Amino acid sequence: MRRNQRDNKHFEPSENIIYGRNPVLELLRAGKRTVNKIMLAQTARGTAVEEIVKLAKEKGIALHSAPPERFDRFGENSQGVAAEVSATEYVELSDLISLSKKETKFPLLIILDGIEDPHNLGAIIRNCVAFGANGVIIPKWRAAGVNETAAKASAGAVEHIRICKVVNTNQAVDLLKEEGFWIAGAENGGQPLQEAKLAFPLVVIIGGEGAGIKNLTKQKCDFLISIPQEKTISSLNASCASAVILHELYKQRNPKS
Amino acid sequence: MRRNQRDNKHFEPSENIIYGRNPVLELLRAGKRTVNKIMLAQTARGTAVEEIVKLAKEKGIALHSAPPERFDRFGENSQGVAAEVSATEYVELSDLISLSKKETKFPLLIILDGIEDPHNLGAIIRNCVAFGANGVIIPKWRAAGVNETAAKASAGAVEHIRICKVVNTNQAVDLLKEEGFWIAGAENGGQPLQEAKLAFPLVVIIGGEGAGIKNLTKQKCDFLISIPQEKTISSLNASCASAVILHELYKQRNPKS
Repeated sequence: MRRNQRDNKHFEPSENIIYGRNPVLELLRAGKRTVNKIMLAQTARGTAVEEIVKLAKEKGIALHSAPPERFDRFGENSQGVAAEVSATEYVELSDLISLSKKETKFPLLIILDGIEDPHNLGAIIRNCVAFGANGVIIPKWRAAGVNETAAKASAGAVEHIRICKVVNTNQAVDLLKEEGFWIAGAENGGQPLQEAKLAFPLVVIIGGEGAGIKNLTKQKCDFLISIPQEKTISSLNASCASAVILHELYKQRNPKS
Repeated sequence: MRRNQRDNKHFEPSENIIYGRNPVLELLRAGKRTVNKIMLAQTARGTAVEEIVKLAKEKGIALHSAPPERFDRFGENSQGVAAEVSATEYVELSDLISLSKKETKFPLLIILDGIEDPHNLGAIIRNCVAFGANGVIIPKWRAAGVNETAAKASAGAVEHIRICKVVNTNQAVDLLKEEGFWIAGAENGGQPLQEAKLAFPLVVIIGGEGAGIKNLTKQKCDFLISIPQEKTISSLNASCASAVILHELYKQRNPKS
């Protein structure tokens, strides 16, 4: 079981939060809705809780542990158990790949390697739709899922693009390579964006807000691209960086626009 | 007196909030620090409050009125009065113009026409520094000031660029035109960004999150520029749009980079 004790900053009531032991248990048993994560009070005990943990583990749903007082905001009936259901339905990676290839000769997919702020996630999805990317791949762990905040920040864009959640980013990269995609990492020190001629099926990896692309993932990249800029500050906000990169690729892919 | 009753969503405790009748009164009397806005409980009365209102009016500081319970978060001693001091020192428009002209032959200034979210403001300032703009102009009213949230979102960029606050955006545009600047508005339907050859002193106006550029301001623009994109969604987040525009201008101004 993976209990992420670190970061529960997005632990806020919303339409997409289901709370209470039985409601969450039934949600998992029914299996009709995509569950982003389950939050458990550190004090939560009992057979229902045990079954929730067991089902979450089976289904590969992230479990977050938090102090009991953080459940106060969900009202008296939360019983220290809450589940965040997805504001969108995710697609499988294999479907994303085959559907993207049907759509266009040179599909463009974006991997977000650990974006933790749902506002950033929403803004990036909006950029992907605006500049015609064919899909977005996000990690299941240690990353924002498409919750209500992200959906709102996307200004409706989540409805217009395929989004895929993967357990292991590096395995996803390996599969994408086998399927003929080139893998570009957005990273300071890479080749200037406008010099990269990118007429092939392409995956662009954009790193998280703080740490950037993880080392192992970076090693898997076929090449690195960077945004030319003044030396004064080290980097852009992740959503702004994605906007610049996607706009540049859009121009290369649509030279007459 | 202008009491903006609308939006106090960024009404949060921070290092940059000074609260209590006498502390705020002394802050205004001393006049040493730039005050972004003053927040008063709707129930606040008395001679100290009257003098705060009078001084704020004289100094052109925005006054926001809010229900008394919103002051609870500032602690018992707020007395229904709080002032947000600036996280940066602003420059005068005339100084911004003359200093920018000394720095470069073709200075680039950005006017933000009503950005209300301090996260967006911070991200835009970060973009301006990354892509070498010479200054940022923000309205005094109905717009986010450079508070602690914006400074943090800028990742330190507020320290690297001149920021100017103006009471009237349209008068600022008139002065900039007299000083030889061309005025470009970022607006859907404008000419595609990469076709605009922009080798002259330039001001780019970026509209607020919801309404875009105000009509009167738009009429003052010499031309409009737009970001080519898919038709699926109507626009980008304001900070992402600014990133794309500033990057494109940076490339035009630094062809070898």
